[in-house]
Amino acid sequence: MSETPAPQDVLPAPPRILGLDPGLQITGYGVLEIRKGSPRVCEAGVIRSAEGRSTTDVAPRVRALYDSIVEVIEQFRPSVVAVEQLYAHYEHPRTAILMAHARGVLFLAAAQRDLQVHSYNATRVKKTITGNGHASKEQVQRTIQRELGLAQLPEPPDVADALAVALCHYYLQKLAA
Amino acid sequence: MSETPAPQDVLPAPPRILGLDPGLQITGYGVLEIRKGSPRVCEAGVIRSAEGRSTTDVAPRVRALYDSIVEVIEQFRPSVVAVEQLYAHYEHPRTAILMAHARGVLFLAAAQRDLQVHSYNATRVKKTITGNGHASKEQVQRTIQRELGLAQLPEPPDVADALAVALCHYYLQKLAA
Repeated sequence: MSETPAPQDVLPAPPRILGLDPGLQITGYGVLEIRKGSPRVCEAGVIRSAEGRSTTDVAPRVRALYDSIVEVIEQFRPSVVAVEQLYAHYEHPRTAILMAHARGVLFLAAAQRDLQVHSYNATRVKKTITGNGHASKEQVQRTIQRELGLAQLPEPPDVADALAVALCHYYLQKLAA
Repeated sequence: MSETPAPQDVLPAPPRILGLDPGLQITGYGVLEIRKGSPRVCEAGVIRSAEGRSTTDVAPRVRALYDSIVEVIEQFRPSVVAVEQLYAHYEHPRTAILMAHARGVLFLAAAQRDLQVHSYNATRVKKTITGNGHASKEQVQRTIQRELGLAQLPEPPDVADALAVALCHYYLQKLAA
């Protein structure tokens, strides 16, 4: 027996973009939902994976981070992941290397669910959302607040950065469409 | 009803050390088994996770690497993992950053199975196994061949490096015991 599904069953879910700002201590994440062509925050926050762990404890940290991001993905079912690109010319190569460990497990969590991952460099993200590739952290936070209609500045900056890369992906995809 | 287990059931399995030389293209691995105080190669090889993938395809690469290392761990059940430490002063920071993505998922696979991960810097590994912290790749290969009674030089060097860090862990643990 087949039944005609009710209309709400056949409507595709609104697309969701998961933006990530990876770190072995704090990873910012933000899920944007696109409704009627307008991006809105569905969920945003930080994952803290360093608590009570020494700086050499990479293994338990990546495990805690992986478990948390899998939870976010399972709960919010994004259709795509956007993340900042890592460059070798970072001022703090040690930080970049630690960040890359975190990035590795975030990419894994996405790949295991067949989610495409798009990387954007920091300058492009800032340029796309604020118009200025060298915008300050505060400018990025203010732009995010305005564009996404948030009552307050997104805090900590890791959340703003995660939302920024998700919003950048949304704008660039829209331009390319 | 309880039965006295046959002696072979109560003998602990000989300890196994999984040594890893991580990379997003090639990861060397080697499992050492310690029998009667003597380390022998149980299994060694390389995982190639870049084949047919572009350099920007980090997500599918970390997934392929993770799946392969999980297979190795499930099959050989090491009790501990040894891996080379990553330093920020690498000559090729881009390579170090890519390597760190690979390292992240290797650490995750170990942590998910409650395996301790020990990191050793390259100089210490070389010094411990050859007596010279600046030994050449070939010297490391020859030492590994001799110490582990291999019929041939371990090839490619990624395999030798993986066995070297496992052997380094074995020697240092023995010294500390």
